[in-house]
Amino acid sequence: MTKKKTTKTRPKLKIIPLGGLGEIGKNMTVIEYENDIIVVDCGLSFPDEDMLGVDLVIPDMTYLEDNFDRIRGFVITHGHEDHIGAVPYAMQKFDVPFYGSRFTLALIEHKMEEHKIKRADLRTVVAGDVVQLGCFKVEFIKVSHSIAGALAVAVTTPVGVVIHTGDFKVDYTPVDNEPIDIARFAYYGTKGVLALMMDSTNAEFPGSTPSELALGGTFEKVFDTAEGRVIVASFASNVYRIQQVADVAIRHNRVLCFQGRSMVMIARIAMELGYLSIPEESIVEVEKLKNYSDSQVCVFTTGSQGESMSGLFRMANANHKLNIGKGDTVVISASAIPGNEKAVGKVINQLFMRGANVVYDRLADVHVSGHARREELKLMMRLIKPKFFIPVHGEARHLHHHALLAASLGIKESNIFVMDTGAVLELSGRSGKLVGSVPSGSVLVDGAGVGDIGSAVLRERRLLSHDGMFVMVIAIKRSTGELAAEPEIISKGFVYSKDADELMEEVKTIAREQSLAFAYADRTEWGNIKNAVKSGVKSCLVKRTGRTPLIQPIFMEVE
Amino acid sequence: MTKKKTTKTRPKLKIIPLGGLGEIGKNMTVIEYENDIIVVDCGLSFPDEDMLGVDLVIPDMTYLEDNFDRIRGFVITHGHEDHIGAVPYAMQKFDVPFYGSRFTLALIEHKMEEHKIKRADLRTVVAGDVVQLGCFKVEFIKVSHSIAGALAVAVTTPVGVVIHTGDFKVDYTPVDNEPIDIARFAYYGTKGVLALMMDSTNAEFPGSTPSELALGGTFEKVFDTAEGRVIVASFASNVYRIQQVADVAIRHNRVLCFQGRSMVMIARIAMELGYLSIPEESIVEVEKLKNYSDSQVCVFTTGSQGESMSGLFRMANANHKLNIGKGDTVVISASAIPGNEKAVGKVINQLFMRGANVVYDRLADVHVSGHARREELKLMMRLIKPKFFIPVHGEARHLHHHALLAASLGIKESNIFVMDTGAVLELSGRSGKLVGSVPSGSVLVDGAGVGDIGSAVLRERRLLSHDGMFVMVIAIKRSTGELAAEPEIISKGFVYSKDADELMEEVKTIAREQSLAFAYADRTEWGNIKNAVKSGVKSCLVKRTGRTPLIQPIFMEVE
Repeated sequence: MTKKKTTKTRPKLKIIPLGGLGEIGKNMTVIEYENDIIVVDCGLSFPDEDMLGVDLVIPDMTYLEDNFDRIRGFVITHGHEDHIGAVPYAMQKFDVPFYGSRFTLALIEHKMEEHKIKRADLRTVVAGDVVQLGCFKVEFIKVSHSIAGALAVAVTTPVGVVIHTGDFKVDYTPVDNEPIDIARFAYYGTKGVLALMMDSTNAEFPGSTPSELALGGTFEKVFDTAEGRVIVASFASNVYRIQQVADVAIRHNRVLCFQGRSMVMIARIAMELGYLSIPEESIVEVEKLKNYSDSQVCVFTTGSQGESMSGLFRMANANHKLNIGKGDTVVISASAIPGNEKAVGKVINQLFMRGANVVYDRLADVHVSGHARREELKLMMRLIKPKFFIPVHGEARHLHHHALLAASLGIKESNIFVMDTGAVLELSGRSGKLVGSVPSGSVLVDGAGVGDIGSAVLRERRLLSHDGMFVMVIAIKRSTGELAAEPEIISKGFVYSKDADELMEEVKTIAREQSLAFAYADRTEWGNIKNAVKSGVKSCLVKRTGRTPLIQPIFMEVE
Repeated sequence: MTKKKTTKTRPKLKIIPLGGLGEIGKNMTVIEYENDIIVVDCGLSFPDEDMLGVDLVIPDMTYLEDNFDRIRGFVITHGHEDHIGAVPYAMQKFDVPFYGSRFTLALIEHKMEEHKIKRADLRTVVAGDVVQLGCFKVEFIKVSHSIAGALAVAVTTPVGVVIHTGDFKVDYTPVDNEPIDIARFAYYGTKGVLALMMDSTNAEFPGSTPSELALGGTFEKVFDTAEGRVIVASFASNVYRIQQVADVAIRHNRVLCFQGRSMVMIARIAMELGYLSIPEESIVEVEKLKNYSDSQVCVFTTGSQGESMSGLFRMANANHKLNIGKGDTVVISASAIPGNEKAVGKVINQLFMRGANVVYDRLADVHVSGHARREELKLMMRLIKPKFFIPVHGEARHLHHHALLAASLGIKESNIFVMDTGAVLELSGRSGKLVGSVPSGSVLVDGAGVGDIGSAVLRERRLLSHDGMFVMVIAIKRSTGELAAEPEIISKGFVYSKDADELMEEVKTIAREQSLAFAYADRTEWGNIKNAVKSGVKSCLVKRTGRTPLIQPIFMEVE
C-alpha cells in the first residue's frame, strides 16, 4: 500500500491543454483551481491523411469526465471549427453553461441542430462583459480575427490573471471598425499578469499581418476589369471578407448570389445578427440569375480549399447550375491550408482549362491571414508583460519559435513553458512547474462512431488501401476433412487485368491441392495445414504481382 | 468503307507531347517528320494521393510502339526522375540510342541495374555536340538547373529549328562556373527559330530565380554559429548544392558523411565523374564518426521531402545510427514539392521536439529553385524570337500564364499553342495547327505490374480505405438449401471496439435468419434471397455504425 503524502501546500492554479499544443486544431484548455474548472474552447481537428476514412478528430475529454462536477463553464473564443467543433460532443457529456459572442453561439446552435441536440445552456457575452465562474472572474476582450465575434479572455484567478488570446491578429483598420482592444490588454499588463497563452500560428513569420482592408484595392481592380461574372471563393465564416467584396460588387452594379451549404447558412446567420450588412434587393437566388447579364453578377461560394463536394469544385467540374467557363473571373480569396495545396491547385487548373480567368494568391493580394505575425506578438508581449508565457495553438515548430521570441523580449527562459497536450502546468504566484500529465489525445469520429476506430483498424485500412484484399474460402467437411466445394476466391482492390483470370486459377489450384491434406491428416494437424495453404497462396501472389494484399483465408467446417 | 484522301500536301513537322503538359512530371515529347521520330525525355511522375498503392506513373507509349521502326533515338535533357524515370520501360520496348550528358547517363545506368537491364545503346554528349538522327540535326546546349549535366536541345528539322529548353534557369554565377550558354540561344534566334518549347514551372513567379550562389551566405552563417553537428537534407542530385555546402563545411574543419541510399549513390557517381570535387580524406563512413567531436561533423542526407523511409526521417525518429538531438543543427535545403508540405512539416516538428535547431525555408534562404521565373523566360523569348511558342512542363495554370507572357512580348496569339498531353501539333514553315490526338495518358506501375491497375481497382482501394471491408460466408447445402454451417463473418478496417462483438452477433443472426429462406424456396428464387441477405446486413451495418464498408457476401454451395 502506498501512503498519501500529508504535506500541506497552498493550492495552485493548473493549466492543462487538452488539445492545440503540438498540433493545429482541436484547441481546448483547462484552467483549474481547487474545486473550480473552466474550459477555454472546444475544437476539432481534421484527420491526417493516414487516418483513413476518419471524419474528424476531437480531444480526449476523459479528464473532464472524471472531474465533471467541478466544471463551471466553457468559454468559447470564436466560432471556427478548431474552437467549436467538439462542442456538441461536450454538450452531450456536460450540462454546464457555454459562453461566447452572438456569432459564436449562433454557429454553435447550428451545430446543435445537426447533432439533434435540443437544448443547452448558451450565454451570450460581448466584449467588456465579466462573468464569475466559481473562483474565476472572466473578462472578454475584443480581438481581430478572420471571423466575426472573436474574443480573448482575461481570467482573474486567486493566484493572478491569466490571459488567453484565442486566435487573433492586430488589425487597426478592420472592416467593422471595431479594432482589437489593445488598451484593455495594456490595462491588465499594467496591473500585472501572471500568465499569457498566445496564438502561435504565425510565429514563424516576420513583420505584421496586413489589415483585412489591404485587400480592398485588389478587389476594386478585379471588378473594374472583369467583363463576365465574378465568382469569389472564400471561407464562409469570414464575414468581413464577404462584406468587403459585397460592397465593391454592389458599387459595380452587381447582384450577389450565395452558393454552398455553409456559405448560405453563415451568410444568413450573419445578416440576421447584423454582422453582415447587405441590402436585401442585392441578393438573388441562383434560379433568378438568368434575369441578369454576366456583368451584373457576383457569386460567393465555398470551396477555397478545393474540397471535392464544394460549390467551386462543382462549378469547375460542370456539376453545378453555375458552371464556370470562358468570360468568368474566379477569385480564390484564401490560401491553402497545409495539406490542401494539391486539391486547391487542381481546382485552379480545372478553371483555367474551362477558360476562366483565375485570380489567386501567387499573383495577387487576395488573402490575408487572421493570425498575428512576429511584430504583433511582440506588441502583445510588451503590453501584457506576463510573468509566465505559454505559446499555444501551434505545431512544435510554431511553439518553439514563439518561445524564442518571448525569450528575446526578456521573459525568463525558466518562465516559458512549451507544453504538450495533456501536460499539467502548476502555477503559484511565484513559480511554475510542469507536474506530469492527464489522459489526453485524439478521439476519432467516423460515421456514428466516436472513439471506436483505433490504430488496428487504421492499420488495416492502410494495408487495404495499398494493395487491396484477397479472400479465399475453403469449405471442409467436418467429418472427413474432404473439400466440400471448390475453393472460392475473391479480391478487391488487388488486380484487374487480362492476366487475373489465369492468376486466380493458379491460386485456386494451389489452395485446392494444399487443402487435400486435411483429409489425410489428424485433426490436430489442421492448424498447420491452414498455415501452409495461406503461405502457399501468399508466395504465389507476391511472386506473380510484387504486391502484398491483405490475405484472409476462411476455413469453414461444414456438416 | 471510308476512302483515304488523296490530296497531296507537303509533309509537316509534328510535335506530340506524350507527357508533361497539364501536369508536373512524366515529361516526354515526340518530334516527328515523315519517316523519322525523335523523343525528348522519358520521365515518370509520382502518383496522386487518390492513386492508392500505386508506386509510380509513366507515360502511355502506345503511339511509339505503333511507330517503333521510325524512332531514331531518345534525347534526354537531364537526370531528374521526371525526365529519366520511364527510360527503363522504354528500353525494354525500343532498341534505339539514348543520348545524354555523362551525369544523365550515369543515373540512367543506375536505373538499368535496378531494372536488371544488361545493355542499352547509351551515347554520351557534351554541350556543343551535334548528332544527326534521321532527318534531324540535334545540338545540345548548356543550361543551368538544379542538377549537373543539364542540356537544352536545338533540333534543326526540314521545316525549321525547334528549341526545347528542358528544365532550366538562367544562372550567371553557377557553382561549377559553367553558366547557361545564352549566346547559343541568341545564335539560333538570329538565324531564325520555328518553334520554342519552354519550361513553364515557375511562370507564375515574377522576377528571376536567384543564383545557386545566393545560398552561400546562409550556409556560412549556419556553420559559423552551429556548435554541434550540422545535418543538411537536400536533393541528392543537386550536386551544386552539395559542393557548395561541402566547401563551407571543410573550411569550418568538418568532415563529411553521406547518408541515405540515393545520396550515397549519386555522390559516388558525381565524384567519379568529376562533377563533385571533395578531398577523399574529408569523407568519413558513419561508423567512424565516433572518432570526431560533434563540432567536426557535417552529414548530408536524403529526406528533404519528409519521405518516411529517408535518412532524415529515421534520424528524426530515433531509427538511425545518427539520431538527431539537442545541439544538432538541421538544415532542410529544399522546399516542399506540392503535396509534401505536411510530411515536411512533420519532420520539422519532430526535429524541434528532439531539441535540434532547424533551419528551413520560412526562416532563412536555404533553397533556390532550379526553374526560370518570368524575367528569365522573357530573356529567352527575346533571344530566341520563335515564330511558334509552346509552353511545356506545367499544369494548366503554369501553361496559361506562360502563354500570356509570350503574348505580352508580341508573339501572335494564333502562334501560341497551349497543348494537352497527346495532342498533335502540325507545323509548316508558315503555319501551325492542332490536328487531333494520339493515344496517351498515364500507365500506373504497382509492384511488378505495369498498367494492370485500372480505375476499377483504384475505386475499390478508395472504398476499402474509407470504411474497410465486410465479408460474410454462407454455406448452403446444394441439395436442400439448408445452412451447412453457421455464417462466418470477417471485417477488416471496419470496426474494432467493445461493441463490435455485439454488432457481429446481430449481423450473424440477420444473415442466418434470412438464409433460412433458401431451404424453403425454389432454386430460381435463390438470387433474390442472396440480395435480401446482403441488403439486410447492409442496412443493419449502416444504421448501427454510420459507415458503408465494402460488403462482400460469399454464398458457397457445398455437397
